[in-house]
Amino acid sequence: MGGMNSVTVIGLGSMGRALAETFLATGHPTTVWNRTPAKAAPLVALGAVQAADAAAAVAANPLIVACLSTFEDTRAALEPADLRGRDLVTLNSGSPAGARAFAAWAVARGARVLAGAVKNVPSAVGAADTLLYYSGERAVFDAYEATLRVLGGDTVHLGDDVDLAALYEMAVGATLLPALTGFFQGAAAVQARGLPVASMVRYSEKWLDMIRSQLPVYAKEIDSGDYGDGASAVKLFLSDAELNAEFTKETGVDTSWQAPLDDLVRRAVAAGHGEDSIAALTEVLRKPS
Amino acid sequence: MGGMNSVTVIGLGSMGRALAETFLATGHPTTVWNRTPAKAAPLVALGAVQAADAAAAVAANPLIVACLSTFEDTRAALEPADLRGRDLVTLNSGSPAGARAFAAWAVARGARVLAGAVKNVPSAVGAADTLLYYSGERAVFDAYEATLRVLGGDTVHLGDDVDLAALYEMAVGATLLPALTGFFQGAAAVQARGLPVASMVRYSEKWLDMIRSQLPVYAKEIDSGDYGDGASAVKLFLSDAELNAEFTKETGVDTSWQAPLDDLVRRAVAAGHGEDSIAALTEVLRKPS
Repeated sequence: MGGMNSVTVIGLGSMGRALAETFLATGHPTTVWNRTPAKAAPLVALGAVQAADAAAAVAANPLIVACLSTFEDTRAALEPADLRGRDLVTLNSGSPAGARAFAAWAVARGARVLAGAVKNVPSAVGAADTLLYYSGERAVFDAYEATLRVLGGDTVHLGDDVDLAALYEMAVGATLLPALTGFFQGAAAVQARGLPVASMVRYSEKWLDMIRSQLPVYAKEIDSGDYGDGASAVKLFLSDAELNAEFTKETGVDTSWQAPLDDLVRRAVAAGHGEDSIAALTEVLRKPS
Repeated sequence: MGGMNSVTVIGLGSMGRALAETFLATGHPTTVWNRTPAKAAPLVALGAVQAADAAAAVAANPLIVACLSTFEDTRAALEPADLRGRDLVTLNSGSPAGARAFAAWAVARGARVLAGAVKNVPSAVGAADTLLYYSGERAVFDAYEATLRVLGGDTVHLGDDVDLAALYEMAVGATLLPALTGFFQGAAAVQARGLPVASMVRYSEKWLDMIRSQLPVYAKEIDSGDYGDGASAVKLFLSDAELNAEFTKETGVDTSWQAPLDDLVRRAVAAGHGEDSIAALTEVLRKPS
């Protein structure tokens, strides 16, 4: 495996550990560092080199993959290190502004930056269809593409602007907590009826497949601004508020978190979108009240 | 095609029309009725018989499939008809209580009732993997299963309680508007950056796949009440409120509808679920504040 890039992984939470394990499993010499050193032990057992501190971890390899919680955490961890000539790949959540600020700081210290995101759970790292996307200087991506691709076969460069991955991360990620909370609300209701939540999973999976199947349709409507052909009209969602109230009455489960959604629907109807596709909610979201 | 059940379809909105077209395409003699008679014309061109009124539509066949907006609308449409000996299959939204009240009314008038739902868009009606589920007397489902299955190959009887489909419908359906609004929020942000919404679709699809892949895990946690193994801890969502504020600042897009979700996360942390799986939100939803 001579010629394979060596890599440093900083931040060994569940995702960072999955990244390091995957580099090790694919034969990449891997140096690791974590603020709580004990977290490195299982990786050392797999062949990783544990750096004594962050500065040593950064000095060990030109390629540094940082998987901490935020850009602020990443900056704090890297503060003691000499970043000259280092290529930093960040995989954390954060805003586009946070990505720009971090990159400006790191570039001023002599590093290059790729800011990215793993679009999946730790157990999916390394799989052929696992998506990771990156933004920042194309040359950096090109230099390490083969190395990064071991983390997921669906590895994408979004563009040279370093904040693009954070933008997409927030845009794409905005479905997560709302969709999950909807599922948990339903789960609580099914349980209130004395039925196992497992009994609804198959239906919920199909329902997400249905939602997924409509995304290209909605994207086309939003891109064109033409919401007139909608099979799911905004007005069809007007009864949701009443149904949510009945749902709470019947099951005891809280649906009040959906009240602002009902309000968005009413505002869309008031703005003349009642017969339009539900994608017309985008127009209301574009203009905060 | 002798021996194939004939059927009456009442309510010819986009879904009702898709149902009638599918019955016709599969050789079922089909009678149709709609409050606005003009909507029947395309179906008559395909071979449907148009009933003069709802009473005549109900009299035409033992099997009536009603696809109106609500149970109240369905009852109003059927009020003039003689329901004795009729088997009513309802495909509309509504609460479990609404399903029970409708069924009680129809049974008192001599009908049997299957209350169901089409878990997909009209264009998916008739496909092999399209899901429809029904609840109500098993014998009625058995009598018409082959006929109902032409509407979707994944046709399920949930149980004898007539309100089960409405319960599952609300439980499963609770992800729809929240997930879509998350997508629309992201779409507005991508547009605000001057990028096409189409550019995020592929990532959003994969993200929904990821969410889908976690539902069995969450269901197991909720059914067992053991949230301790969560890869996605509640505390990881604590920064969402701050990120949403930055997202609005950066893109001008409204994220305020997510405020109650941030509040749920904070309540879950306050209740001691910070290190638990995000599925522990179910416990908070179970106890309305």
